[in-house]
Amino acid sequence: MAAEHHETPDAETLANVVETGLHEGAIVTLQAECEVEYDGRTSGYLGPGDRLLVCKPDGTLLVHQPDGHKPVNWMPAGGTVSARESDGDLVVVARRVNPRERVEVRLIEAYGVTRYDADDAAEYEESGTEDEMHAYIEAHPDELEEGLRVVEHERETKYGFIDFFATDSEGNPVVVEVKRIQATLNHFDQLKRYVSLYEDNDEVRGMLVAPSASERVRRALRDSGLEFVELAEFDRDATGTTDAKLSDF
Amino acid sequence: MAAEHHETPDAETLANVVETGLHEGAIVTLQAECEVEYDGRTSGYLGPGDRLLVCKPDGTLLVHQPDGHKPVNWMPAGGTVSARESDGDLVVVARRVNPRERVEVRLIEAYGVTRYDADDAAEYEESGTEDEMHAYIEAHPDELEEGLRVVEHERETKYGFIDFFATDSEGNPVVVEVKRIQATLNHFDQLKRYVSLYEDNDEVRGMLVAPSASERVRRALRDSGLEFVELAEFDRDATGTTDAKLSDF
Repeated sequence: MAAEHHETPDAETLANVVETGLHEGAIVTLQAECEVEYDGRTSGYLGPGDRLLVCKPDGTLLVHQPDGHKPVNWMPAGGTVSARESDGDLVVVARRVNPRERVEVRLIEAYGVTRYDADDAAEYEESGTEDEMHAYIEAHPDELEEGLRVVEHERETKYGFIDFFATDSEGNPVVVEVKRIQATLNHFDQLKRYVSLYEDNDEVRGMLVAPSASERVRRALRDSGLEFVELAEFDRDATGTTDAKLSDF
Repeated sequence: MAAEHHETPDAETLANVVETGLHEGAIVTLQAECEVEYDGRTSGYLGPGDRLLVCKPDGTLLVHQPDGHKPVNWMPAGGTVSARESDGDLVVVARRVNPRERVEVRLIEAYGVTRYDADDAAEYEESGTEDEMHAYIEAHPDELEEGLRVVEHERETKYGFIDFFATDSEGNPVVVEVKRIQATLNHFDQLKRYVSLYEDNDEVRGMLVAPSASERVRRALRDSGLEFVELAEFDRDATGTTDAKLSDF
């Protein structure tokens, strides 16, 4: 069970889930009415209210109010998060030494706590913009297929913009969807949706263009009679930055 | 029930919890294996892994990996978060218009989802540092009590530093704990711990000094024979910034 939830836990259960969970490498999230104090570069106080707490095994603590993407209080990785009982309440404390600071959360009423044994080795891979790739394709349609001719760049449809509406050497229409990142099933869905707009034309083809694609995506495309074109020039180098620049071509 | 949790929800349940929850003003958190793509100023892809997703009714989406205080992907308030089924998977999409960007999360396996109807009107109140208040008290111990004399500033003990170790006009020891923010039960706990170090001395007194305190904290102090001293000069003005500066005195 990757996620184990306890409803309206008592202070003892809470302390146990927080301490054991973090120690064993799990993420612990709590829904609770609480008050928060911060002490460090300044001092601060947040009166009682319902908040979401996220505790990570690396010492991260996030206190989220119902609005906004920034936590109202937080502590970065590097310190420790611990829990103790005090007068029947649970107190969660995150602290670090350099700089010396402390966030202390007193739980007035706990609605739920979840221990989440998350396994994640993936790293975010950033690529350049799709605009660069569009410009390249517009200038070199032959790179996708010999004889391909761009009829319209960004054709508006009821499902949004088709990246390229093209024709092949036989004159058949080709719907081209371009992705700057490894192709996903979402991209397959999108191409399929666009191609369906022309389904009264038997000869219409659909082409997903991306630096790479998993076998799962390639299979989904094949099974639907759609094609994948790998533009490896836009694949990434080992450092995680993009290799290809427009000026390279 | 403020927090309603579903274990290993199917795509239909997930879509319903996300859509209905956000529409009705709840925070929705998901534990799931997922892949993420970002499209906007750049493009990016995060391969499959276990993540915590936080969706807020204001359009905020946070994707958290097991480490670090920053979400790996996020969208600020102002846009929309929606959920749709695709090939039996749930896809959560956060988008906004200006700038035009989009985070798309495909859930490969959902371990849990929690709808959290959080009620929180509190605002974080930041104060200056405690150092300012310490300097003021050291210069004006009479402001705490007529005849009070500071024996030691920051006396080290096995429980940490006592802010001031003082004596009253009768020569009895006084443990003084100073807080720059409204006094909380945590501060009461702390003072009680320090005073317990001197419990073989019947005459020892404990004094919590802060700009204000709730009736709950005042009662806890009274019940334990401890005292509260309000240093209202360090209270805050209506705009939420601190009124008192050292130079005011």
